[in-house]
Formats: sequence, C-alpha cells, structure tokens
Amino acid sequence: MTHDVSLDAPAGGAGPAAPLAAGALMGAEIAEQPAVLARLLADGATEIAATAARIAARRPRFVLLAARGTSDHAALYAKYLIEVRLGLPVGLVSPSTMTVYGARPDLGEALFIAVSQSGGSPDLVDSLTVARECGALTVAVTNNLASPLAQAAELGVDVRAGAERAVAATKSYTAELLALYLMIAGADGPLAAAALPEAANRTLAGSDPKLLAAKYRFADRMVTTGRGYSYPTARETALKLMETSYLSAQAFSGADVLHGPLAMIDAGVPVIVVAPPGRGGAAMAPVVAKLRAAGADVLCVGADDGVPLASAGVAEELLPILEIMPMQQLAWQLALDRGNDPDRPRGLSKVTQTW
Amino acid sequence: MTHDVSLDAPAGGAGPAAPLAAGALMGAEIAEQPAVLARLLADGATEIAATAARIAARRPRFVLLAARGTSDHAALYAKYLIEVRLGLPVGLVSPSTMTVYGARPDLGEALFIAVSQSGGSPDLVDSLTVARECGALTVAVTNNLASPLAQAAELGVDVRAGAERAVAATKSYTAELLALYLMIAGADGPLAAAALPEAANRTLAGSDPKLLAAKYRFADRMVTTGRGYSYPTARETALKLMETSYLSAQAFSGADVLHGPLAMIDAGVPVIVVAPPGRGGAAMAPVVAKLRAAGADVLCVGADDGVPLASAGVAEELLPILEIMPMQQLAWQLALDRGNDPDRPRGLSKVTQTW
Repeated sequence: MTHDVSLDAPAGGAGPAAPLAAGALMGAEIAEQPAVLARLLADGATEIAATAARIAARRPRFVLLAARGTSDHAALYAKYLIEVRLGLPVGLVSPSTMTVYGARPDLGEALFIAVSQSGGSPDLVDSLTVARECGALTVAVTNNLASPLAQAAELGVDVRAGAERAVAATKSYTAELLALYLMIAGADGPLAAAALPEAANRTLAGSDPKLLAAKYRFADRMVTTGRGYSYPTARETALKLMETSYLSAQAFSGADVLHGPLAMIDAGVPVIVVAPPGRGGAAMAPVVAKLRAAGADVLCVGADDGVPLASAGVAEELLPILEIMPMQQLAWQLALDRGNDPDRPRGLSKVTQTW
Repeated sequence: MTHDVSLDAPAGGAGPAAPLAAGALMGAEIAEQPAVLARLLADGATEIAATAARIAARRPRFVLLAARGTSDHAALYAKYLIEVRLGLPVGLVSPSTMTVYGARPDLGEALFIAVSQSGGSPDLVDSLTVARECGALTVAVTNNLASPLAQAAELGVDVRAGAERAVAATKSYTAELLALYLMIAGADGPLAAAALPEAANRTLAGSDPKLLAAKYRFADRMVTTGRGYSYPTARETALKLMETSYLSAQAFSGADVLHGPLAMIDAGVPVIVVAPPGRGGAAMAPVVAKLRAAGADVLCVGADDGVPLASAGVAEELLPILEIMPMQQLAWQLALDRGNDPDRPRGLSKVTQTW
C-alpha cells in the first residue's frame, strides 16, 4: 500500500520536528480553499476549456464516471451536471465488474472520466485502462498529473489543489468540483464561477463551527440528505463526519430518505438537510416537513435559520462548492472536541488500496 | 399519497376482523419466497424470454435503471449482471435530473428499465415517460402490470410475487432479482435457476434468526458490506434493519468501506459481510481481514462459521436471492425482540410519494 501521508511519520518531516497540533493539516487545507479556487480559475480554466473542446469533438453518446471515497462525491456532482447541462446519460462505474468479473463492455461511444485526488488507486487505474482498451475516450481528473491514473488516460485535468497532506480530503474535493464544472459548463464557466473564491471566503468566515459541534457533541448517529446537486454534499458531509468524528452518519437522497430510512429517524437521530436556494433546495421542503413531523431535529444548510451560505451571485450549480465548507469545519471541530486528531483518523491512510 | 397497505386499516379487512399478530404479514411473505420463485420460473420464464428477445432485437448501446428503495437494490443487481453478462455500460438514473431540473437527454440507443413493486411511484412514472419521449426503449419490471408505471412503458415484466401486503418488501425483492436475471441471462436462465426454489427452502430452514437477533439485540449502529453481485444484498440488509428495527445500518461496497468508513468501525459497531462462495466473496477476504484487525465484530453471510447458505448447485450470479433471506429473517426477528411490529414500521407506507 502506498501512502501520500504516513500515519507513522508525519508528512514533511525528514528529521525531528515539532509535532503538529491536532488537526493542523486539515484545518489549514479547509482555510486554503478560497485561494485554491482562485488559482484554479486563474491558471487552469483555459487548459480545461481546451480539454473540454477535445472531448466535445469526439461527440460521446454517454458518460461513465469512476471514483472512490470523497472523489466519488465529486463524480456524483458531475453526473447531475452532465445529465442536466449536456443531456447525456451518465453511469457511475462499478469497477468490480471489470476488475473482479472481467467485463469488457463496448465503449466505442463512451466518455470515461476517472476522478481521484492522488491518481493512485490501483482499481481505478485498472478500470480506466480496460475502458480505454474497450474504446472509451478516457479522462483523468486528478491532483497529480504524474500519477499512474493520469498517465493511463488519454486526457488529463489538473485540479491544482496543491499537495494535500491531511488524510481527510477537503481542498481537493472543492477543487475537483470546480474543475469538473469548468470541464462541463464550457465557455461560460469561468465567468459564472468568478464570484466563487470570495463567496467561499465569506462562507468560511460566516460559519460558527464551535456552536454546531457543541450541538452534536454526544451524537453517535446522524442522517444527512439533499437532492440534485446537493446530494453529493450530503454524501461528503456524512463521510467527513465518519472519518474524523467516528459518527455513524448516513446519507440519503431526499427521495430515498422517505423510503425505509424514515422509520429509524426519531428525536435521537439528528438530520442535516442540504437545502440551498434553488430547485434542489425547493424539492427538499416536503422532505423537511415530513422529517420534522417524525420528530427529527433538522438543521438546514443553506437556510438563514440553519447554516447560512454566502451564496449571493453564485449559480445554483456551483453552490455545492460552498455547502460543504461549513460541514468540513464541523467535522474538524467535532473531532477536536471529542479528543480525536482529525489529521490521524484511526485505520485510514491517504491512498486506499482496493483489491 | 396512495397506499397499497394503509397503516390505519390493515389490508384485506373490509369489516371488523381479528388483529393480525405482530409481523404476521412480513413473516408469511418471507416464508412464501420459495413458492414465489418456483411460480415465476414455471409461469413467467417463457414470457420474460420473449421480452428479452424484443429488447435484444433493438440492440441497445447502453442501459439506464431507475428505482427507489428496495427495488433500487434489485436495479443495482441488474447493473452488475448487465455489465458482466451483456457487456453494456449501465447507469443508475437520478430521477431528479429529469423531474426537478428538466433534463431531456438523447436516449435514442438506450434501454431504460424501471423497477418498482407497486409501479406507483410518481417520479419513476415521470422519468420513464420522459425517457420514452427521449427515444429510449422502456421496460417496467413490476409486481403490477396494471400500474401506472407498467402502463407508461413499452414493455412490461411481471415479477408474479402476488400481492405484497407487508410494508417491508421481501418476496417482491427476490422475485425482482429472479425476473431481472431471467431477462438478462437469456436462454440458459431457466435451467441455471432451476435449483433455486429448493435452495431457498433449505436456506430459510437452515437459518437461526433467534440466535442472530439475540446477538444484535442492543446494537443501534451497524455496517453491512459486500462486493459485486453481493453489494445489493448488503444494501438491502441495511434497509431491512433500518425499516423494521430502527438500527442506523450503513451499507458500503467492499471497496468503499476501506475509505473513510473504516475509521468509525470499532468493537461497538458490528459488521455484516456478505461473502458467498465465488469471486465477489473472494474479493472480500482482505476487507474482512482489515475489519477484524480494526477490532470489528464481523459476521459473514455465506460462510460456514457465519450464516451458511444452501448454495450447492446455484450459480454465483443467483446467490443474492439466497443471501438476503436470512437477513430478512434477522430483521423480522430483531424487530419483534425489540417490541416493534415489523408490519407497521413507524412513519412508512407501502407506496412512497416522491416530489
């Protein structure tokens, strides 16, 4: 197994060095996000537009997305964006059909996009390689263009997040979202995203993670939910809380939560609903009503009486980049309050080997 | 909102009748499964083969699957089967892209399969209707060919489970799995499935749900996991436990569980691993080792020292139909042991309206 960050020897330390404070890495990377977004817009937008043009010239008929962990949530965001903006059907790849069961689908008209911060997950490299052999146009969206995944792909998109040292991904996630947005939105992408770095700054500054973390200090279960573009935020929020605070946090789409899962939600299972301004948030209103009727404690991300976002001037499609930030802050603060080091989640390493 | 089963007036009772014992409906439907499978093979296989031939003649280039709740797990099973056996790429539909965001993709070469026990979920009917307008060949796999979903589709597959009265779906799930298998496997399907009803009988009889339920009597969190064909079993197990026993049961693919989720698993979070004989089960061995190293209590479905399956003579692809049965029994028994009525999960009704 490879490690970008070894849990035994903290990153960056060749010789003896002062130990980092708990959560120092993740905390710094959360705070760095406005600058990362600004850099990606300034330095990466032209290159991504050129890649997008090469993809468009091949006229793919459908799209496959492959990713794991946090990057899988960025891929899910891209799924909604591609379906709505490009009108192409999208599938999320189950790598095991190719790597475990040996499937060799005909992908002559497919666009295959793999998303991975490190570009080092062996099963992603394997499935992208198989997809390329099967005729797909392959694109690696990664934070490391020298990685095996980027090398295996025909086209590469650099998310330019800078080295990510914390095990719990934060800045690479929002950079992946923006890179995918720029790739999919085409020529009007950079202008639509221009307000984003400053909105990210204000969103981070306007959040009160200490108060939020206090509320959930003794929760051991949680449900998160959202619809459309915000469903990936619900998923990523749950993952951040799991990996830093060891909560059993379950994410459901706003549609699925009213099937089965509703039964287990009572006053003891807090719910975080991602319901920003726009159609996805509006579609959550009846879900929120039903959850509250079931006695659930509901916190709405994107609502003034919940967790407000500095969303003025930011298109609905880009709000997921803002939504996740106060949730990253919550996961970080809650881990610290519980005496955990969010930079050293038990049992995890930066690159996960999947067999 | 429509109800197949009203929680206020138990099904079947026009006049006053003796109240059913807690869990009577779900218990009977679990036990009925071998007969349902036998009936589907005897009465439905020829019809499904004819539908499969009509689909094959249209030579779809890719497949979209749409479903919610338990049926979504049957759709996930079909995704693996189609990718591996037919070599076609498959996407699981996010209905909101069509129903909330108004996407109108070009589906001229797509096969669109909706799976729903009741055939009554409005958002599935809407997305299937849009898909048909966009050029897809549409198929409804349902337990009610008179339903709006079946009426909206070009082709219908009847899973022949008989009226399902329990809110928690059991027999319709395994019937959906078998119907999808027959539709995808083609001519050799019926022969490969011939041993299934008797194997189901033996699997149900060989399980010890009382002992299993005793083990989890006071658990409030749980993780389930599996890979490939067995991943849908992990998902459906978690849903059954959520909706009848109100556990926070989280399902992860065997690949994803080693990202993030591993951090929250300790001796207090029991894990059920679906690891039957075959490639999917073999791919779980390193995951089981890592979970045990993290101190987790691991129960393996499909292992002799865990929950054995009467799997002799049943192809690996069909094992999900057996795997779920002891988990249905567990969910039923655990609900009863906790004083819940598994036939009346709080907050749920048989048909869930999604906006």
